[in-house]
Amino acid sequence: MKVIIAKLDISTKGDPDLINITGEISQTLESSGLENGSLTVFVVGSTAAITSFEYEPGLVQDVRDLFEKLVPREKHYNHDETWGDANGFSHLRAGLQGPSLTIPFEAGKLLLGTWQQVVLAEFDNRPRQRKVIVQLIGE
Amino acid sequence: MKVIIAKLDISTKGDPDLINITGEISQTLESSGLENGSLTVFVVGSTAAITSFEYEPGLVQDVRDLFEKLVPREKHYNHDETWGDANGFSHLRAGLQGPSLTIPFEAGKLLLGTWQQVVLAEFDNRPRQRKVIVQLIGE
Amino acid sequence: MKVIIAKLDISTKGDPDLINITGEISQTLESSGLENGSLTVFVVGSTAAITSFEYEPGLVQDVRDLFEKLVPREKHYNHDETWGDANGFSHLRAGLQGPSLTIPFEAGKLLLGTWQQVVLAEFDNRPRQRKVIVQLIGE
Repeated sequence: MKVIIAKLDISTKGDPDLINITGEISQTLESSGLENGSLTVFVVGSTAAITSFEYEPGLVQDVRDLFEKLVPREKHYNHDETWGDANGFSHLRAGLQGPSLTIPFEAGKLLLGTWQQVVLAEFDNRPRQRKVIVQLIGE
Repeated sequence: MKVIIAKLDISTKGDPDLINITGEISQTLESSGLENGSLTVFVVGSTAAITSFEYEPGLVQDVRDLFEKLVPREKHYNHDETWGDANGFSHLRAGLQGPSLTIPFEAGKLLLGTWQQVVLAEFDNRPRQRKVIVQLIGE
Repeated sequence: MKVIIAKLDISTKGDPDLINITGEISQTLESSGLENGSLTVFVVGSTAAITSFEYEPGLVQDVRDLFEKLVPREKHYNHDETWGDANGFSHLRAGLQGPSLTIPFEAGKLLLGTWQQVVLAEFDNRPRQRKVIVQLIGE
Protein backbone atom coordinates (compact mmCIF):
# COMPACT_ATOMS: atom_id res chain seq x y z
CA MET A 1 0.00 0.00 0.00
CA LYS A 2 1.23 3.43 -1.00
CA VAL A 3 0.11 7.05 -0.82
CA ILE A 4 0.90 9.12 -3.90
CA ILE A 5 0.04 12.76 -4.40
CA ALA A 6 0.08 14.96 -7.49
CA LYS A 7 -0.83 18.61 -7.89
CA LEU A 8 -2.41 20.01 -11.01
CA ASP A 9 -2.07 23.73 -11.76
CA ILE A 10 -5.03 24.92 -13.76
CA SER A 11 -5.81 28.40 -15.10
CA THR A 12 -9.50 29.23 -15.01
CA LYS A 13 -11.68 32.02 -16.38
CA GLY A 14 -14.54 32.19 -13.84
CA ASP A 15 -18.26 33.07 -14.24
CA PRO A 16 -18.41 29.96 -14.04
CA ASP A 17 -15.77 28.00 -15.90
CA LEU A 18 -16.35 24.25 -16.12
CA ILE A 19 -13.16 22.39 -17.03
CA ASN A 20 -12.90 18.70 -17.88
CA ILE A 21 -9.88 17.36 -15.93
CA THR A 22 -10.49 13.64 -16.50
CA GLY A 23 -7.48 13.34 -18.80
CA GLU A 24 -5.06 14.83 -16.27
CA ILE A 25 -6.44 12.62 -13.52
CA SER A 26 -6.22 9.43 -15.57
CA GLN A 27 -2.65 10.31 -16.48
CA THR A 28 -1.79 10.76 -12.80
CA LEU A 29 -3.13 7.30 -12.09
CA GLU A 30 -1.19 5.82 -15.01
CA SER A 31 2.09 7.46 -13.93
CA SER A 32 1.64 6.19 -10.37
CA GLY A 33 1.90 2.55 -11.37
CA LEU A 34 -0.80 1.67 -8.83
CA GLU A 35 -3.31 -0.99 -9.82
CA ASN A 36 -6.04 -1.04 -7.18
CA GLY A 37 -7.21 1.63 -4.78
CA SER A 38 -8.95 4.91 -4.31
CA LEU A 39 -8.32 8.30 -5.92
CA THR A 40 -9.43 11.56 -4.32
CA VAL A 41 -9.67 14.79 -6.31
CA PHE A 42 -9.68 17.89 -4.08
CA VAL A 43 -9.67 21.55 -5.10
CA VAL A 44 -7.90 23.99 -2.78
CA GLY A 45 -9.95 27.15 -2.14
CA SER A 46 -13.48 28.11 -1.21
CA THR A 47 -14.87 29.37 -4.55
CA ALA A 48 -14.35 26.26 -6.69
CA ALA A 49 -15.72 22.72 -6.58
CA ILE A 50 -15.26 19.26 -8.07
CA THR A 51 -18.22 17.67 -9.80
CA SER A 52 -18.84 15.04 -12.46
CA PHE A 53 -21.12 15.00 -15.47
CA GLU A 54 -21.21 14.15 -19.17
CA TYR A 55 -18.94 16.83 -20.57
CA GLU A 56 -20.66 18.10 -23.73
CA PRO A 57 -21.55 21.73 -24.60
CA GLY A 58 -25.31 21.41 -24.02
CA LEU A 59 -24.92 20.03 -20.52
CA VAL A 60 -22.10 22.45 -19.68
CA GLN A 61 -24.59 25.26 -20.38
CA ASP A 62 -27.32 23.47 -18.38
CA VAL A 63 -25.02 23.22 -15.34
CA ARG A 64 -24.28 26.95 -15.61
CA ASP A 65 -28.02 27.68 -15.83
CA LEU A 66 -28.80 25.43 -12.86
CA PHE A 67 -26.34 27.21 -10.58
CA GLU A 68 -27.63 30.58 -11.79
CA LYS A 69 -31.12 29.46 -10.77
CA LEU A 70 -30.14 27.96 -7.39
CA VAL A 71 -27.66 30.71 -6.40
CA PRO A 72 -28.16 33.78 -8.62
CA ARG A 73 -25.13 35.91 -9.31
CA GLU A 74 -26.88 39.29 -9.11
CA LYS A 75 -28.57 38.79 -5.74
CA HIS A 76 -26.95 40.62 -2.82
CA TYR A 77 -25.16 38.36 -0.31
CA ASN A 78 -23.90 39.34 3.14
CA HIS A 79 -20.48 38.01 2.23
CA ASP A 80 -20.20 40.71 -0.44
CA GLU A 81 -19.82 43.25 2.40
CA THR A 82 -16.97 41.35 4.05
CA TRP A 83 -14.24 41.77 1.48
CA GLY A 84 -15.95 43.90 -1.17
CA ASP A 85 -15.20 41.36 -3.91
CA ALA A 86 -18.86 40.59 -4.72
CA ASN A 87 -18.36 36.85 -4.96
CA GLY A 88 -20.78 35.67 -2.29
CA PHE A 89 -22.54 33.61 -4.96
CA SER A 90 -19.23 31.87 -5.79
CA HIS A 91 -18.73 30.70 -2.21
CA LEU A 92 -22.30 29.44 -1.92
CA ARG A 93 -22.16 27.49 -5.17
CA ALA A 94 -18.81 25.93 -4.23
CA GLY A 95 -20.02 24.90 -0.77
CA LEU A 96 -23.20 23.34 -2.13
CA GLN A 97 -21.33 21.24 -4.71
CA GLY A 98 -18.30 20.43 -2.51
CA PRO A 99 -14.52 20.42 -3.06
CA SER A 100 -13.87 16.68 -3.11
CA LEU A 101 -14.65 13.55 -5.11
CA THR A 102 -13.44 10.00 -4.43
CA ILE A 103 -13.29 7.45 -7.27
CA PRO A 104 -12.22 3.80 -7.03
CA PHE A 105 -9.73 2.34 -9.52
CA GLU A 106 -9.03 -1.26 -10.50
CA ALA A 107 -6.46 -2.84 -12.81
CA GLY A 108 -4.97 0.62 -13.29
CA LYS A 109 -8.22 2.18 -14.57
CA LEU A 110 -10.65 4.61 -12.93
CA LEU A 111 -14.09 3.02 -12.61
CA LEU A 112 -15.86 5.95 -14.26
CA GLY A 113 -18.66 5.48 -16.78
CA THR A 114 -18.03 6.33 -20.42
CA TRP A 115 -19.94 9.62 -20.12
CA GLN A 116 -18.89 10.41 -16.56
CA GLN A 117 -16.20 13.07 -16.61
CA VAL A 118 -14.53 14.77 -13.66
CA VAL A 119 -15.00 18.52 -13.82
CA LEU A 120 -13.34 21.42 -12.02
CA ALA A 121 -16.07 24.02 -11.44
CA GLU A 122 -14.56 27.48 -11.12
CA PHE A 123 -17.34 29.51 -9.50
CA ASP A 124 -15.29 32.62 -8.76
CA ASN A 125 -16.15 35.82 -10.64
CA ARG A 126 -12.62 36.28 -12.01
CA PRO A 127 -9.80 34.18 -13.47
CA ARG A 128 -7.90 32.12 -10.92
CA GLN A 129 -4.86 29.89 -10.78
CA ARG A 130 -6.18 26.69 -9.16
CA LYS A 131 -4.39 23.89 -7.40
CA VAL A 132 -6.16 20.55 -7.70
CA ILE A 133 -4.84 17.73 -5.51
CA VAL A 134 -4.99 14.20 -6.89
CA GLN A 135 -4.27 11.69 -4.18
CA LEU A 136 -4.06 7.93 -4.65
CA ILE A 137 -4.09 5.30 -1.95
CA GLY A 138 -3.61 1.76 -3.17
CA GLU A 139 -1.25 -0.96 -4.30
CA MET B 1 -3.74 -2.85 4.99
CA LYS B 2 -5.80 -4.20 2.13
CA VAL B 3 -7.89 -2.90 -0.76
CA ILE B 4 -11.03 -4.92 -1.45
CA ILE B 5 -13.57 -4.19 -4.15
CA ALA B 6 -17.07 -5.51 -4.74
CA LYS B 7 -19.55 -4.69 -7.48
CA LEU B 8 -23.29 -4.65 -6.94
CA ASP B 9 -25.59 -5.09 -9.93
CA ILE B 10 -28.86 -3.29 -9.29
CA SER B 11 -31.94 -3.03 -11.52
CA THR B 12 -33.65 0.34 -11.26
CA LYS B 13 -36.93 1.81 -12.51
CA GLY B 14 -36.09 5.51 -12.95
CA ASP B 15 -38.23 8.67 -12.54
CA PRO B 16 -36.58 8.73 -9.90
CA ASP B 17 -36.06 5.41 -8.13
CA LEU B 18 -34.57 5.64 -4.64
CA ILE B 19 -33.16 2.29 -3.51
CA ASN B 20 -31.88 1.47 -0.03
CA ILE B 21 -28.57 -0.39 -0.53
CA THR B 22 -27.38 -0.31 3.10
CA GLY B 23 -27.89 -4.05 3.52
CA GLU B 24 -25.78 -4.98 0.50
CA ILE B 25 -23.02 -2.60 1.60
CA SER B 26 -22.94 -3.91 5.18
CA GLN B 27 -22.78 -7.45 3.84
CA THR B 28 -19.81 -6.51 1.64
CA LEU B 29 -18.02 -5.18 4.71
CA GLU B 30 -18.84 -8.32 6.68
CA SER B 31 -17.60 -10.65 3.93
CA SER B 32 -14.36 -8.69 3.63
CA GLY B 33 -13.21 -9.58 7.12
CA LEU B 34 -11.78 -6.07 7.54
CA GLU B 35 -12.14 -4.42 10.94
CA ASN B 36 -11.06 -0.79 10.60
CA GLY B 37 -10.98 1.45 7.58
CA SER B 38 -12.90 3.40 5.04
CA LEU B 39 -15.62 2.29 2.61
CA THR B 40 -16.42 4.19 -0.58
CA VAL B 41 -19.67 3.67 -2.47
CA PHE B 42 -19.49 4.87 -6.08
CA VAL B 43 -22.11 4.58 -8.81
CA VAL B 44 -20.88 4.23 -12.38
CA GLY B 45 -22.72 6.50 -14.83
CA SER B 46 -23.79 10.11 -15.10
CA THR B 47 -27.53 9.89 -14.39
CA ALA B 48 -27.45 8.28 -10.93
CA ALA B 49 -26.10 9.35 -7.55
CA ILE B 50 -25.36 8.08 -4.05
CA THR B 51 -27.01 9.83 -1.14
CA SER B 52 -28.00 9.03 2.43
CA PHE B 53 -31.18 9.69 4.39
CA GLU B 54 -33.68 8.03 6.69
CA TYR B 55 -35.28 5.53 4.37
CA GLU B 56 -39.02 5.70 5.08
CA PRO B 57 -41.86 6.27 2.56
CA GLY B 58 -42.63 9.87 3.60
CA LEU B 59 -39.06 11.03 3.21
CA VAL B 60 -38.58 9.04 -0.01
CA GLN B 61 -41.45 11.09 -1.46
CA ASP B 62 -40.00 14.32 -0.03
CA VAL B 63 -36.65 13.66 -1.72
CA ARG B 64 -38.46 13.07 -5.03
CA ASP B 65 -40.38 16.34 -4.56
CA LEU B 66 -37.22 18.26 -3.67
CA PHE B 67 -35.42 17.21 -6.84
CA GLU B 68 -38.54 17.98 -8.88
CA LYS B 69 -38.46 21.49 -7.41
CA LEU B 70 -34.72 22.08 -7.82
CA VAL B 71 -34.39 20.48 -11.28
CA PRO B 72 -37.87 20.08 -12.86
CA ARG B 73 -38.35 17.19 -15.23
CA GLU B 74 -40.53 19.02 -17.76
CA LYS B 75 -38.28 22.03 -18.30
CA HIS B 76 -36.31 22.02 -21.55
CA TYR B 77 -32.55 21.47 -21.15
CA ASN B 78 -29.88 21.98 -23.81
CA HIS B 79 -28.65 18.45 -23.21
CA ASP B 80 -31.98 17.12 -24.49
CA GLU B 81 -30.91 18.21 -27.99
CA THR B 82 -27.62 16.34 -27.82
CA TRP B 83 -28.84 12.75 -27.83
CA GLY B 84 -32.59 13.20 -28.07
CA ASP B 85 -33.18 11.15 -24.92
CA ALA B 86 -34.78 13.99 -22.93
CA ASN B 87 -32.90 13.22 -19.72
CA GLY B 88 -31.11 16.53 -19.17
CA PHE B 89 -32.81 16.75 -15.77
CA SER B 90 -31.36 13.33 -14.83
CA HIS B 91 -27.80 14.45 -15.47
CA LEU B 92 -28.26 17.69 -13.54
CA ARG B 93 -29.78 15.97 -10.52
CA ALA B 94 -27.03 13.34 -10.49
CA GLY B 95 -24.25 15.94 -10.74
CA LEU B 96 -25.70 18.05 -7.95
CA GLN B 97 -25.98 15.11 -5.56
CA GLY B 98 -22.75 13.38 -6.61
CA PRO B 99 -21.75 9.77 -7.39
CA SER B 100 -19.69 8.97 -4.31
CA LEU B 101 -19.97 8.56 -0.54
CA THR B 102 -17.20 7.61 1.92
CA ILE B 103 -18.09 6.04 5.27
CA PRO B 104 -15.66 5.00 8.03
CA PHE B 105 -15.96 1.59 9.67
CA GLU B 106 -14.66 0.32 13.01
CA ALA B 107 -14.72 -3.10 14.66
CA GLY B 108 -16.28 -4.45 11.47
CA LYS B 109 -19.26 -2.07 11.54
CA LEU B 110 -20.10 0.97 9.42
CA LEU B 111 -20.33 4.08 11.59
CA LEU B 112 -23.75 5.06 10.24
CA GLY B 113 -26.50 6.38 12.47
CA THR B 114 -29.56 4.20 13.12
CA TRP B 115 -31.67 6.23 10.68
CA GLN B 116 -28.91 6.96 8.20
CA GLN B 117 -29.29 4.69 5.19
CA VAL B 118 -27.20 4.64 2.01
CA VAL B 119 -29.39 5.18 -1.04
CA LEU B 120 -28.81 4.69 -4.75
CA ALA B 121 -30.68 7.51 -6.50
CA GLU B 122 -31.62 6.51 -10.03
CA PHE B 123 -32.39 9.81 -11.72
CA ASP B 124 -32.61 8.52 -15.28
CA ASN B 125 -36.00 8.60 -17.03
CA ARG B 126 -36.00 4.87 -17.79
CA PRO B 127 -35.05 1.56 -16.12
CA ARG B 128 -31.31 0.93 -15.95
CA GLN B 129 -28.97 -1.84 -14.90
CA ARG B 130 -26.58 -0.10 -12.46
CA LYS B 131 -23.13 -1.03 -11.29
CA VAL B 132 -22.35 0.22 -7.78
CA ILE B 133 -18.74 -0.10 -6.64
CA VAL B 134 -18.10 -0.78 -2.96
CA GLN B 135 -14.45 -0.32 -2.14
CA LEU B 136 -12.86 -0.93 1.24
CA ILE B 137 -9.44 0.18 2.38
CA GLY B 138 -8.44 -0.99 5.82
CA GLU B 139 -7.09 -3.74 8.00
CA MET C 1 0.20 2.59 6.36
CA LYS C 2 -2.10 3.04 9.30
CA VAL C 3 -5.80 3.64 9.98
CA ILE C 4 -6.50 6.01 12.87
CA ILE C 5 -9.92 7.08 14.08
CA ALA C 6 -11.03 9.85 16.42
CA LYS C 7 -14.50 10.85 17.54
CA LEU C 8 -15.47 14.41 18.28
CA ASP C 9 -18.44 15.09 20.57
CA ILE C 10 -20.06 18.36 19.63
CA SER C 11 -23.07 20.10 21.19
CA THR C 12 -25.20 21.92 18.63
CA LYS C 13 -28.12 24.34 18.79
CA GLY C 14 -30.02 23.60 15.54
CA ASP C 15 -32.06 25.89 13.23
CA PRO C 16 -29.42 25.60 11.61
CA ASP C 17 -26.18 25.77 13.57
CA LEU C 18 -23.01 26.04 11.48
CA ILE C 19 -19.92 25.13 13.52
CA ASN C 20 -16.32 25.53 12.41
CA ILE C 21 -14.55 22.26 13.32
CA THR C 22 -11.32 22.86 11.39
CA GLY C 23 -9.29 23.30 14.58
CA GLU C 24 -10.41 19.98 16.09
CA ILE C 25 -9.72 18.18 12.82
CA SER C 26 -6.24 19.66 12.40
CA GLN C 27 -5.46 18.71 15.99
CA THR C 28 -6.54 15.12 15.30
CA LEU C 29 -4.15 15.00 12.37
CA GLU C 30 -1.33 16.46 14.46
CA SER C 31 -1.86 13.98 17.31
CA SER C 32 -1.88 11.07 14.86
CA GLY C 33 1.73 11.59 13.84
CA LEU C 34 0.82 10.71 10.24
CA GLU C 35 2.53 12.66 7.47
CA ASN C 36 0.84 11.76 4.17
CA GLY C 37 -2.63 10.44 3.50
CA SER C 38 -6.30 11.07 3.42
CA LEU C 39 -8.64 12.34 6.16
CA THR C 40 -12.38 11.69 6.09
CA VAL C 41 -14.80 13.70 8.22
CA PHE C 42 -18.17 11.95 8.68
CA VAL C 43 -21.12 13.03 10.79
CA VAL C 44 -23.28 10.29 12.30
CA GLY C 45 -27.02 10.93 11.86
CA SER C 46 -29.42 11.96 9.15
CA THR C 47 -30.15 15.60 10.05
CA ALA C 48 -26.61 17.01 9.96
CA ALA C 49 -24.01 17.41 7.22
CA ILE C 50 -20.36 18.27 6.63
CA THR C 51 -19.57 21.16 4.33
CA SER C 52 -16.75 23.62 3.78
CA PHE C 53 -16.73 27.37 3.23
CA GLU C 54 -15.02 30.54 4.36
CA TYR C 55 -16.17 30.77 7.95
CA GLU C 56 -17.08 34.42 8.52
CA PRO C 57 -20.40 35.83 9.87
CA GLY C 58 -21.66 37.19 6.53
CA LEU C 59 -21.25 33.91 4.72
CA VAL C 60 -22.58 31.91 7.67
CA GLN C 61 -25.80 33.91 7.30
CA ASP C 62 -25.77 33.46 3.51
CA VAL C 63 -25.52 29.67 3.90
CA ARG C 64 -28.48 29.74 6.31
CA ASP C 65 -30.46 31.83 3.79
CA LEU C 66 -29.56 29.55 0.90
CA PHE C 67 -30.85 26.44 2.67
CA GLU C 68 -33.98 28.31 3.72
CA LYS C 69 -34.56 29.12 0.03
CA LEU C 70 -33.79 25.64 -1.31
CA VAL C 71 -35.58 23.68 1.45
CA PRO C 72 -37.88 26.02 3.41
CA ARG C 73 -38.47 25.22 7.05
CA GLU C 74 -42.17 26.09 7.15
CA LYS C 75 -43.27 24.01 4.16
CA HIS C 76 -45.09 20.79 5.01
CA TYR C 77 -43.11 17.60 4.31
CA ASN C 78 -44.44 14.05 4.27
CA HIS C 79 -41.74 13.03 6.73
CA ASP C 80 -43.31 15.35 9.31
CA GLU C 81 -46.20 12.86 9.58
CA THR C 82 -43.92 9.89 10.23
CA TRP C 83 -42.57 10.77 13.66
CA GLY C 84 -44.39 14.02 14.40
CA ASP C 85 -41.12 15.86 14.99
CA ALA C 86 -41.57 18.36 12.12
CA ASN C 87 -37.99 18.11 10.91
CA GLY C 88 -38.55 16.95 7.33
CA PHE C 89 -36.63 20.03 6.17
CA SER C 90 -33.64 18.99 8.32
CA HIS C 91 -33.40 15.58 6.65
CA LEU C 92 -33.68 17.05 3.16
CA ARG C 93 -31.02 19.68 3.77
CA ALA C 94 -28.65 17.11 5.27
CA GLY C 95 -29.12 14.67 2.39
CA LEU C 96 -28.55 17.35 -0.23
CA GLN C 97 -25.29 18.52 1.37
CA GLY C 98 -24.05 15.07 2.43
CA PRO C 99 -22.47 13.65 5.61
CA SER C 100 -18.90 13.16 4.44
CA LEU C 101 -15.85 15.11 3.26
CA THR C 102 -12.44 13.71 2.30
CA ILE C 103 -9.35 15.95 2.46
CA PRO C 104 -5.78 14.99 1.53
CA PHE C 105 -2.90 15.82 3.86
CA GLU C 106 0.82 16.11 3.18
CA ALA C 107 3.82 16.72 5.44
CA GLY C 108 1.41 16.58 8.40
CA LYS C 109 -0.83 19.39 7.11
CA LEU C 110 -4.32 19.34 5.63
CA LEU C 111 -4.27 20.70 2.08
CA LEU C 112 -7.07 23.18 2.73
CA GLY C 113 -7.01 26.72 1.39
CA THR C 114 -6.53 29.62 3.82
CA TRP C 115 -10.24 30.48 3.69
CA GLN C 116 -11.53 26.94 3.37
CA GLN C 117 -12.89 25.79 6.70
CA VAL C 118 -14.58 22.48 7.53
CA VAL C 119 -18.04 23.07 8.96
CA LEU C 120 -20.49 20.84 10.79
CA ALA C 121 -23.97 21.84 9.61
CA GLU C 122 -26.57 21.01 12.23
CA PHE C 123 -29.83 21.12 10.30
CA ASP C 124 -32.05 19.63 13.00
CA ASN C 125 -34.70 21.84 14.59
CA ARG C 126 -33.42 21.28 18.14
CA PRO C 127 -30.12 21.02 20.02
CA ARG C 128 -28.28 17.76 19.48
CA GLN C 129 -25.22 15.98 20.78
CA ARG C 130 -23.30 15.07 17.59
CA LYS C 131 -20.62 12.49 16.96
CA VAL C 132 -18.22 13.47 14.19
CA ILE C 133 -15.83 10.76 13.00
CA VAL C 134 -12.38 11.83 11.86
CA GLN C 135 -10.61 8.99 10.12
CA LEU C 136 -7.07 9.08 8.77
CA ILE C 137 -5.47 6.62 6.40
CA GLY C 138 -1.83 7.24 5.68
CA GLU C 139 1.76 6.86 6.76
